[in-house]
Amino acid sequence: MSSSKINKSLIKNPPLEGREALYVIKIGGNIIDDENKLSSFLKSFADLSGLKVLIHGGGKLATRLAEQLGVQQQLIEGRRITDAETLKIVTMVYAGYINKNIVAKLQSKGSNAVGLSGADGNLIQAHKRIPTPPLGDGGIDYGFVGDVDAVNNTLIKSLLDQDMSLVIAPITQDKNGQLLNTNADTIAQEIAKAMSNDYEVHLIYSFEKRGVLLNAEDDNSVIQTINQDYYKDLKDNNVIFAGMIPKLDNAFMAVQQGVKRVVIGNAEQLHQLITGDAGTSIIYE
Amino acid sequence: MSSSKINKSLIKNPPLEGREALYVIKIGGNIIDDENKLSSFLKSFADLSGLKVLIHGGGKLATRLAEQLGVQQQLIEGRRITDAETLKIVTMVYAGYINKNIVAKLQSKGSNAVGLSGADGNLIQAHKRIPTPPLGDGGIDYGFVGDVDAVNNTLIKSLLDQDMSLVIAPITQDKNGQLLNTNADTIAQEIAKAMSNDYEVHLIYSFEKRGVLLNAEDDNSVIQTINQDYYKDLKDNNVIFAGMIPKLDNAFMAVQQGVKRVVIGNAEQLHQLITGDAGTSIIYE
Repeated sequence: MSSSKINKSLIKNPPLEGREALYVIKIGGNIIDDENKLSSFLKSFADLSGLKVLIHGGGKLATRLAEQLGVQQQLIEGRRITDAETLKIVTMVYAGYINKNIVAKLQSKGSNAVGLSGADGNLIQAHKRIPTPPLGDGGIDYGFVGDVDAVNNTLIKSLLDQDMSLVIAPITQDKNGQLLNTNADTIAQEIAKAMSNDYEVHLIYSFEKRGVLLNAEDDNSVIQTINQDYYKDLKDNNVIFAGMIPKLDNAFMAVQQGVKRVVIGNAEQLHQLITGDAGTSIIYE
Repeated sequence: MSSSKINKSLIKNPPLEGREALYVIKIGGNIIDDENKLSSFLKSFADLSGLKVLIHGGGKLATRLAEQLGVQQQLIEGRRITDAETLKIVTMVYAGYINKNIVAKLQSKGSNAVGLSGADGNLIQAHKRIPTPPLGDGGIDYGFVGDVDAVNNTLIKSLLDQDMSLVIAPITQDKNGQLLNTNADTIAQEIAKAMSNDYEVHLIYSFEKRGVLLNAEDDNSVIQTINQDYYKDLKDNNVIFAGMIPKLDNAFMAVQQGVKRVVIGNAEQLHQLITGDAGTSIIYE
């Protein structure tokens, strides 16, 4: 991976006049668990000039710690059920271990990173998810899981104005003293939307895959661009891998609500994702 | 404990003209481990009007988690030896679980708290402790333990200016990617000293004891005021409990370097510690 600074003239969607570009980057999947890949990704992130926010998930570390502590994990439809013991574990792993290790690594690579959870400074206000349908009618109680109500964009802006990059762990609070485990993709999307009033926001979902594949068996079948009509076709024909659908649904909501573009692709190609030379771009029309 | 707002006219050392008061408060000992005492303390902290920074230790939670995970703990002269596994545990417990739970509780009590470790935004720059005397000459290798080099007072000031209270976990970094376990009393002292250029700083060490005792067997023998001469007498006569000496040494360094006053006392009496009606006050002369 190149460690050179991004040449902004290469970006295919240059900033609109008067609005600075802001990169909101979600890192997830097994990149977090792979020390070398994570380190290489963080070097690219540190070398990216301009304003930037990193949102991280938790990888397999939380699951491993739960096993070591004998805390049973339950997943429903791919989502972790967060009981009190699991909440304690994800708070330790996401907001503690992963967040602070990423911050220390970015500091060593020249990026003045500050790590926050969504709870800090009421950065992401949330409420405990209300089961729909209700519990008695087949609804699922996800436990201490948060749905996002609001983003404190003033705090984010003030830290960006101090030349800091933000590293955000997906733990929120409800203003009643309860911490909540919150989907990191959703947090990335909500931050991107909230910051779109002040910045030209590029939302990048980076993980271990190269983008949205037309053929799940062929890593070279990355779809370059998806608009809303094409997305409907792909879903109708069951082309899209089920695990990708929440990411794409979020992406379309984001571009509908002011985000300049959403890119989905491989964390090892961060600079190419930003210049538009890799990954799948989601656009409004 | 009263939950009323502090009446500033009651404070025995009113702020010097032109400098706002800043309360730097260390909470430690077994208060952290006692849910009711911690909650009551946080209510008092939230009700304290004015600018404030809270620094917390880790209580027994890190030791308990280490036991559960089968990580052997070693203490030398009352200090935890921080090997790589222990560093992981304290990072999770201090910067994750304890820090974010305190933040959520303060948010619920009306204080806009933001939780940071010393690593965030290079808030506390540190280096790995160098053994003195050297290792071969009987020095002790404390492992991944940090000694403080500098405090980023600009970041602290910018958050205070946004009406936030700060909650700081005693984990730092060395600018080379290494996290370091760092003494919370020392961090409180270094922050108090660094902020004394801009504020009239009151440094409060609050824990389970009522202050410095003249007679370790008698909880009512709290010494109200200690100056440097009296401290020397007390040490010469072995009156001071050994565990208290590092706290007092830190306190005298702080008042020598610009901190207005240092108070040591019971976390359950926070408002009285601030008004000067409880605890032991350390003064310059």
